[in-house]
Amino acid sequence: MMIKGVLLDLSGVLYIGNQPLPGAIDAVQYLARSGLPIRYITNTTRSPRSAILKKLAAMKLKVAQNELFTAPVAAHNYIKRNGLSPYLLLHADLLPEFSEFDCKNFDSVLLGDAGRGFTYEKLNKAFRLLFNGAPLFAMGDNRYFKEEDGFSLDAGPFLHALEMASGVKATVLGKPAKEFFLEAIQEFDCPPGEVVMVGDDVEADINGACEAGLQAILVQTGKYRSSDDQYIRNPGVRIAEHITQAVNWIAQ
Amino acid sequence: MMIKGVLLDLSGVLYIGNQPLPGAIDAVQYLARSGLPIRYITNTTRSPRSAILKKLAAMKLKVAQNELFTAPVAAHNYIKRNGLSPYLLLHADLLPEFSEFDCKNFDSVLLGDAGRGFTYEKLNKAFRLLFNGAPLFAMGDNRYFKEEDGFSLDAGPFLHALEMASGVKATVLGKPAKEFFLEAIQEFDCPPGEVVMVGDDVEADINGACEAGLQAILVQTGKYRSSDDQYIRNPGVRIAEHITQAVNWIAQ
Repeated sequence: MMIKGVLLDLSGVLYIGNQPLPGAIDAVQYLARSGLPIRYITNTTRSPRSAILKKLAAMKLKVAQNELFTAPVAAHNYIKRNGLSPYLLLHADLLPEFSEFDCKNFDSVLLGDAGRGFTYEKLNKAFRLLFNGAPLFAMGDNRYFKEEDGFSLDAGPFLHALEMASGVKATVLGKPAKEFFLEAIQEFDCPPGEVVMVGDDVEADINGACEAGLQAILVQTGKYRSSDDQYIRNPGVRIAEHITQAVNWIAQ
Repeated sequence: MMIKGVLLDLSGVLYIGNQPLPGAIDAVQYLARSGLPIRYITNTTRSPRSAILKKLAAMKLKVAQNELFTAPVAAHNYIKRNGLSPYLLLHADLLPEFSEFDCKNFDSVLLGDAGRGFTYEKLNKAFRLLFNGAPLFAMGDNRYFKEEDGFSLDAGPFLHALEMASGVKATVLGKPAKEFFLEAIQEFDCPPGEVVMVGDDVEADINGACEAGLQAILVQTGKYRSSDDQYIRNPGVRIAEHITQAVNWIAQ
């Protein structure tokens, strides 16, 4: 492996809930000291970037704002660039980050993991806009994620519900979109093939990164289940027991 | 057409919301006087059978209880026959009909059009059961239905959300399941090929009935959109402007 930059997924790789995974903090600190550029990337759309940085700091992970690249940041950039006025189907904690788009004449729908914000009324409102021709944008289509008390529904199932009902196909702005990975590494001074993505989600992290031309390491923590291996679509993907093993491979 | 029995869908064919479609009541009364056996069949899972009968009576449609065959009736029969203890993701108005199954040790999930009952918490509870291996039963997988103020999400999108998240494939107990149509006509004294189904939903009503060996007439009312024609999968399906035209064809 010739590695000149690293992308790290957060939940399921470094921590679960508010609990760091064993060895994860040491591994990341070791990687940071190596001087390799790192970006922390996540489709988490239940918290604004400031809350994620605070959470990382509480775990003794010093991450600069520009090192954290999230699906909401990518979505915000995209909406602004394209002058859209989306109906926001988002988690309440994330709405302040999108307050500048809070409008009345919706021309599109933007979906994130709204959690308890996924009510029938809101989903139906989004459906009616889509059914009348509005485009659908999503910050990710992850199926589920691991919480401290079990697995929980992520944005993907709700995205598919709206796609199935309306016949509209969504544009995904977070992982596994190729553009997301390329935007995340644009300040790295190397081609995509010399960057490695470390994640626990075969579809969003691993297959997505490979499509963008990156290398990838799947870790057997977080949402990983042994049956996931069969869904790896690209050759050369390595499977590490945990972030510590992945970092050892990268550092070699 | 050699017709010896008729299946009529309700919403979108005879009425929308609480409003009968023009000519629909006359057409059905005419058909009933002809002496052909009729069953009114519906995947509507927002109301118990008693409420539907009351609604029909208010529209001057006298329908006997055994003439109304609903997805919840089919589901109730199935659950009882198989000794299941399902977690009920149903509309609040329908729960009393399933009170005998209200248990604590869930071994399956039963999904209907829960409407505002589709909360994140309940969907996540169902997801966790399915993810641990429980089978999923659904009273229909209709995409949407027409209300007085527009189209609204039916059970199908939520069903697909749970299927996508859990990897579990549902067994549908309402339309378009072949068994549902055959159960609906079991008291008719004729083979399925001499029964015609009249509906506004290409997938649930028309393709489903044809798979069960029935004839079918698609009406251009309710949820019908001209782009639906391309999804008709079987030859011989006729397209009527409305229930009145369909009844004229049947009576000839």
